[in-house]
Amino acid sequence: MIEKAKSGHPGLPIDAAPMAYVLWEKLMNFNPKDPQWLNRDRFVLSAGHGSALLYSLLYFNQYHVSIDDIKQFRQLGSLTPGHPEYGHTEGVDATTGPLAQGLGMAVGMAIAERHLANLYNRPSYKIIDHYTYALVGDGDLMEGLSHEALNIAGDKKLGKLIVLYDSNDISLDGPLSLSTEENVEERVKAAGWDYSYVKDGNDLEALEAAIKSAKRTDQPSFIEVKTIIGYGTPLAGTNKVHGAAMGPENVEKTRENYGWDLAPFEFSQDIYDIYDNYVNLKSVNYSDWKDLFDKYSYEYPAEAGQLKAKKLDTKSIETSYKPGNEIATRVASSELLQQIADKNPQFWGGAADLSSSNKTYLTDDGDFTDENPSGRNIFFGVREFGMGAAVNGINLHGGSRAFGSTFFVFSDYMKAAIRLAAIQHLPSIFIYSHDSLAVGEDGPTHEPIEQLVGLRAIPNVNVIRPADANETVAAWKVIGDTTDKPNILVTSRQKLPVLKETLNAPVDKGGYILSDSNSTTPDGILIASGSEVHLALEAQDKLNEQNFDVRVVSMPSIELFNRQSQDYKDSVLPPDVEHRVAIEMGTSFVWSQFTGLKGAIIGVDRFGASGKGPQVVDSYGFNTENIVKTFKKLWNKF
Amino acid sequence: MIEKAKSGHPGLPIDAAPMAYVLWEKLMNFNPKDPQWLNRDRFVLSAGHGSALLYSLLYFNQYHVSIDDIKQFRQLGSLTPGHPEYGHTEGVDATTGPLAQGLGMAVGMAIAERHLANLYNRPSYKIIDHYTYALVGDGDLMEGLSHEALNIAGDKKLGKLIVLYDSNDISLDGPLSLSTEENVEERVKAAGWDYSYVKDGNDLEALEAAIKSAKRTDQPSFIEVKTIIGYGTPLAGTNKVHGAAMGPENVEKTRENYGWDLAPFEFSQDIYDIYDNYVNLKSVNYSDWKDLFDKYSYEYPAEAGQLKAKKLDTKSIETSYKPGNEIATRVASSELLQQIADKNPQFWGGAADLSSSNKTYLTDDGDFTDENPSGRNIFFGVREFGMGAAVNGINLHGGSRAFGSTFFVFSDYMKAAIRLAAIQHLPSIFIYSHDSLAVGEDGPTHEPIEQLVGLRAIPNVNVIRPADANETVAAWKVIGDTTDKPNILVTSRQKLPVLKETLNAPVDKGGYILSDSNSTTPDGILIASGSEVHLALEAQDKLNEQNFDVRVVSMPSIELFNRQSQDYKDSVLPPDVEHRVAIEMGTSFVWSQFTGLKGAIIGVDRFGASGKGPQVVDSYGFNTENIVKTFKKLWNKF
Repeated sequence: MIEKAKSGHPGLPIDAAPMAYVLWEKLMNFNPKDPQWLNRDRFVLSAGHGSALLYSLLYFNQYHVSIDDIKQFRQLGSLTPGHPEYGHTEGVDATTGPLAQGLGMAVGMAIAERHLANLYNRPSYKIIDHYTYALVGDGDLMEGLSHEALNIAGDKKLGKLIVLYDSNDISLDGPLSLSTEENVEERVKAAGWDYSYVKDGNDLEALEAAIKSAKRTDQPSFIEVKTIIGYGTPLAGTNKVHGAAMGPENVEKTRENYGWDLAPFEFSQDIYDIYDNYVNLKSVNYSDWKDLFDKYSYEYPAEAGQLKAKKLDTKSIETSYKPGNEIATRVASSELLQQIADKNPQFWGGAADLSSSNKTYLTDDGDFTDENPSGRNIFFGVREFGMGAAVNGINLHGGSRAFGSTFFVFSDYMKAAIRLAAIQHLPSIFIYSHDSLAVGEDGPTHEPIEQLVGLRAIPNVNVIRPADANETVAAWKVIGDTTDKPNILVTSRQKLPVLKETLNAPVDKGGYILSDSNSTTPDGILIASGSEVHLALEAQDKLNEQNFDVRVVSMPSIELFNRQSQDYKDSVLPPDVEHRVAIEMGTSFVWSQFTGLKGAIIGVDRFGASGKGPQVVDSYGFNTENIVKTFKKLWNKF
Repeated sequence: MIEKAKSGHPGLPIDAAPMAYVLWEKLMNFNPKDPQWLNRDRFVLSAGHGSALLYSLLYFNQYHVSIDDIKQFRQLGSLTPGHPEYGHTEGVDATTGPLAQGLGMAVGMAIAERHLANLYNRPSYKIIDHYTYALVGDGDLMEGLSHEALNIAGDKKLGKLIVLYDSNDISLDGPLSLSTEENVEERVKAAGWDYSYVKDGNDLEALEAAIKSAKRTDQPSFIEVKTIIGYGTPLAGTNKVHGAAMGPENVEKTRENYGWDLAPFEFSQDIYDIYDNYVNLKSVNYSDWKDLFDKYSYEYPAEAGQLKAKKLDTKSIETSYKPGNEIATRVASSELLQQIADKNPQFWGGAADLSSSNKTYLTDDGDFTDENPSGRNIFFGVREFGMGAAVNGINLHGGSRAFGSTFFVFSDYMKAAIRLAAIQHLPSIFIYSHDSLAVGEDGPTHEPIEQLVGLRAIPNVNVIRPADANETVAAWKVIGDTTDKPNILVTSRQKLPVLKETLNAPVDKGGYILSDSNSTTPDGILIASGSEVHLALEAQDKLNEQNFDVRVVSMPSIELFNRQSQDYKDSVLPPDVEHRVAIEMGTSFVWSQFTGLKGAIIGVDRFGASGKGPQVVDSYGFNTENIVKTFKKLWNKF
């Protein structure tokens, strides 16, 4: 198929075929008729460029991938895209390609399995009991993320996680020795893994024995399988077979080497028969589980419901905050978190060593550890990217809903995981506190500037930056209801006044009229998000004293606002009102879509500074006086 | 000072003081009068939250940090910000705080030392010969970046890199055992490092012996120093002393424990005398080197000039490309790279295992390896973030100018390093090929969408996306002349027509009139960057046939354009011409700053797809017909 597409990576699909065969046919539990079966064994092809291998497995194992789909490999609209895509092709357990993220997500899946088994299994009801397998290549292991993922798994003793390492000594630019001399065995052992070695990647019996042995250990298991990249091809053992089609001549020679004389895309009936037999055998396990789960659902309806829940129950939450009080939105968010955790036992998460600062520790729910796998606080360590990938893996697994948290500025370290959550339509929740210059003393390295814009630019995400505690309540209701995209909740370190206008704020609409002008057509509009909203309100008062009649719009989420009807958007921002000032402590250009060529933006287009938070904020122009001045200057311009 | 600021991290500065003392006073070469001395030993406080320790060292070692500066710790405008800032406080060798990046930059500094020593030292002229030290904490080592950095250093056998690990078993959220059980010794050995252990972090003799022994190995050295966080304080050994001021009572007890009875910020004269003595001793080495370098400059003026060069010599490059030809900008960039490398021996760099795809291999210049340290191609392996930090470290070191390259979409993995280049005003060069949907078959995980916007949002960077080969030439001239910010060059995988309008294009102005309207005041403006520019030109022709007289503006760099005078900007984009269409294969909202509320943007606000590049591009609306249609629709609106 790579030859037909004239594009793709033939190396890994050939050399890793034997291990994949053993795993899928001899060992894994799955059912092609129910690809999302909660208790299936998971398989993550972390080396996603080897997608041709996965599609072959799906085809022969009767998933919804036909020989015509196979022929359409890497073509627009096909079920067989260049890298495996979760939600696009049935049987693909995770979207992979960006290296090491598959491994990171597999760790998350194994965390979910461990946790859910302990939380939801009942005597005689082992409804959660499966393995998670990942196939990784050299590139995966060079990535820093692999370090984080391996250590999270080692620390949490994820005994049912098994990684197969296609050790072929070749990467895209040439032999691996060009760039690494790492001792992989020592490294994975240092991270708390069980290690074994299969010296011939074509030895089916050795592969099966190694995996079976790995299933028996209490530690996560790492099986290094020595292979020859593109085994059986004239280019075997070289980087020429890593990332490009081989060409017809080499394919011909390869066919000769394997003694394969059928036409391309043709297979004899006995091959199909063999696979049919495997699939039939597996269907027995599935039926047994299905019966068990039906009984479980009858006996434990609440638990079964939680396992199947797509949304978080936030309806009964009636928290509201009194105007006049002052509370940081990270603290308000924390109070909501506790309540949601109480009402939704399947809701959990953790932090990258900042739970005490992010205020995301679930106080009543214990820690997720080897001794207490039903604990609901995951200590990811200072491993932001590993956390992001693991949270995605937990949410891919299903049965629970997970969040991860750190300082907003460190979203940079895990940006690629947020992207992959968005691509996969996962409802991962990322909670970021310390959202602006107001961080203060820690200075420019710790003060987010461009992060708001950078994350808003990702397709299919909600970035929500609430103005106060009540908008935070509403934000959590949006988050709870979201099923198809990640939510990024951005909270303040510092206390913010609770506004009198935000009770039951329509945060789900993204932006709304917080405080209107006195006349129907305002003189102008002040648009702000987060901690700048109360400044806009104060400026409105000051402007009113000077006979400028302006409207204040709170815009906690640009993405949600942009998804509203044009009528709604025009009602909030009437097209003929062109005197608009946007105020936000972040890169300014994102607001041009609302302020246009004529409006003004009070933003931050340089790095922050170390000093007392309020002083830093003030010195960057975030004060009532500057808003008033900016509006009046704009007013005098046209 | 932490107590006075009522904010900061007291734990590490106290427990790591002995090792810092031994290192700075007994072993390191530096001169406070010439803080940027090329051959000084480098010291990177990777655990940047321990800045109080570094400022104390700078103060006692006669750097430009006074006792008043010390008293202003973490205050706005002070020389002693919350985290150490390169370029802000003399004697700070790198801006640190975002964890593990200090370690990554130290690796880059050691790469630079190794390379420059081999390239520039001459018989009797050992002008480059120094050590690089980094002090790391537990947090640094948990970060994935530490894995990449350790392995790059191990692979390149950077024998003059010495890392001191403040092993205090505590991180912000509590004891380290909450989140890690890694065997650090095994781990660093697996990465090819020499390892030693100092069991008592207060044992000055053991510390000195360990560092001296580390200096003698051919491998990079890792010294684990067991310490008790906040040693001597009532909170010693707990996370309470990690990240917050201790409070007056605890400070009082600590003072008692240490038998310290002077007032805060007061020291007896004998302490000053001891440090004066150290500094005087060091000045001898400095003078000797200075004499040597003067002679070297006389004997090898070209080499001395290269070591001191701030800009790259691009003046003599007269490459131009013939209109009508087709060439990918990654290929054009490659041709420029070779030429710049020829003319600038101090110019070098590498790729994250994609040099053959990025086209950034310097064909005549050998590989940087243990055996050939003067080679100029660095194989970083699949370690994008490690590469970014190392490139920053090389450029921080001085004496050479380095670039790093990978696929544009993987800029995500190293975003935090780009930010740190920008904060530090480093002229790091990041070359990203495969810049858009045109990547094609590899699909959504490999097709950049939001990356252009995300990187443009960072303060103090140039993002340059040339329209064709000739704009690429001009882009390299901008890059060569830049001394105070990173440049991000974004190139196409696919061939692009060489335009007849781009010869000597003013890319330094960021945006310019590529093809003007016939009349003085155009009917409208088409603004595009990169591979969309030639589509805009074709659309201009088509629109002309239909009697719409539009101007085409090429905008390879929004940042450079925004730095021009208002007059220039208005001459390119006259304020009264409101029929504007921007065309770029990336998140659309960044163009609102030029199209305003009335204009239109043809952008990409969803993820890409796997298929043949031209098909994907076309199906997302990037074709002449859609531009023409969009302009006419806009024309009919107002």
